[in-house]
Amino acid sequence: MDLSELRYRPGKELDDYETAPTIKLAKENALSRIEENKARMTLLQDKLYAEGKSALLLILQGMDTSGKDSAIKHVLTGLNPQGIEVTSFKAPNATELEHDYMWRTDRALPPKGKIGVFNRSYYEDILVVRVHGLVSGHGMEDKAFWKMRCRQIRDKEQYLLENGIVPVKIFFHISKGEQAERLLKRIDDPEKNWKFDAADIKERAFWEDYQRAYQEAFEGTSTKEIPWYIVPADKKWYARFLLSEILLEELERLEPEYPVVSKQQRETLEQYRALLEKDE
Amino acid sequence: MDLSELRYRPGKELDDYETAPTIKLAKENALSRIEENKARMTLLQDKLYAEGKSALLLILQGMDTSGKDSAIKHVLTGLNPQGIEVTSFKAPNATELEHDYMWRTDRALPPKGKIGVFNRSYYEDILVVRVHGLVSGHGMEDKAFWKMRCRQIRDKEQYLLENGIVPVKIFFHISKGEQAERLLKRIDDPEKNWKFDAADIKERAFWEDYQRAYQEAFEGTSTKEIPWYIVPADKKWYARFLLSEILLEELERLEPEYPVVSKQQRETLEQYRALLEKDE
Repeated sequence: MDLSELRYRPGKELDDYETAPTIKLAKENALSRIEENKARMTLLQDKLYAEGKSALLLILQGMDTSGKDSAIKHVLTGLNPQGIEVTSFKAPNATELEHDYMWRTDRALPPKGKIGVFNRSYYEDILVVRVHGLVSGHGMEDKAFWKMRCRQIRDKEQYLLENGIVPVKIFFHISKGEQAERLLKRIDDPEKNWKFDAADIKERAFWEDYQRAYQEAFEGTSTKEIPWYIVPADKKWYARFLLSEILLEELERLEPEYPVVSKQQRETLEQYRALLEKDE
Repeated sequence: MDLSELRYRPGKELDDYETAPTIKLAKENALSRIEENKARMTLLQDKLYAEGKSALLLILQGMDTSGKDSAIKHVLTGLNPQGIEVTSFKAPNATELEHDYMWRTDRALPPKGKIGVFNRSYYEDILVVRVHGLVSGHGMEDKAFWKMRCRQIRDKEQYLLENGIVPVKIFFHISKGEQAERLLKRIDDPEKNWKFDAADIKERAFWEDYQRAYQEAFEGTSTKEIPWYIVPADKKWYARFLLSEILLEELERLEPEYPVVSKQQRETLEQYRALLEKDE
């Protein structure tokens, strides 16, 4: 499928992006496609690791209950965990707050050969931090300040790309109504009670501010080379299917290959073969 | 003194910068000035720490034997070690090599309130790495590649400045003849034998390449806001004196102040005073 349609388009309001599935696809077909994609990703991941030349950095953002955690679980389970590093960024701790805002995410950048996953990221520093005015003196409306941070993020991602770490930025887009239903489920379903956090209800009151902060984050950091994908996420299976499609496409684009041994290395290998065969 | 004369000037060849002292100053006067500067720095450091709003990042570069280590020892000993973090960057280890080149220096960035010292830095990635072609496929003459890295470094330092971490970049400039004398001392003086490393002799053969790499690094990363200081370093006491002058000036420019308590906090303090006085 043509994933480029999911890319954020400058000027298009976030409200005008679908949260419901946009292509006709039965749920069971989507689920089997996810499995096929995982099988292909497994092979590509193995080559990526063997080659050790580049890394993929999945940056996953979305409102509370948008399904980030469960998508990671469903789409990435089955890949070799030695080649994946998932880091979830929650409220920063005291040490992290003492540093520049990218310090904690920089430390978690994947080495070459691996797939890094940021479950939330430095984007929180232009989202929750903006909505709640957590940088003293820089409120929601201090546009110059947030534009500066967008530029800093563009510079960072450009640096990453130039240094073999390819950012893949995905936003799980849900409607406010769908969030209400998911929160209700967490209250109603005993097995989901542990997920319910009253703070989510408080955050929900800032829905419009968040949508605007997201919109301006996409506007300021979507580039041709490093776009944002806006993934309709009101149906979890659909969002997961698209996540697997995007990851597969991005891995394929890296064209990882097992390193080819040189003629000289080949000769060395043959010498060892001779030694071992004598030794049998 | 006017330190702006030490700033790197675009277009001026590194060869044309003095390595010998450029102002008339007796050695004993320089040494007592260093002590005065340290006393003033101590107070400023205390305020910087109390305020916790910004950090100073000293980036020290120079050829082997240029006196970086001993300058750190002489100029920074006496400051509160709780407020200083010195990190020396030698050849990267296997884990560091797996990451993007700024990964190891990013981890070592100082928190707000502290003075960070990089004894060598990410600049090595456009110096030794360039001279010895350590990035496969990008030799000394691949100017586009090294220019790209200079731009990445400019972006990084701009980000640091905008996030309260002020880079102060100092190059200890020695002549090739002075290096020969210092290496000879390491061979002749039993107490200095431990410092002698045959690798330094090998590196010396690349002197001209290093000078050119340094020149182009300064050209590509000196900006009005974040300049390089080219410090004549053939006399150690003179280089240390200038280091202390630059650090003092940069600390003063930050204007750190002890946080002032609010009226409300003042009232709380008075309540505690009353409690304690009753308790005496």
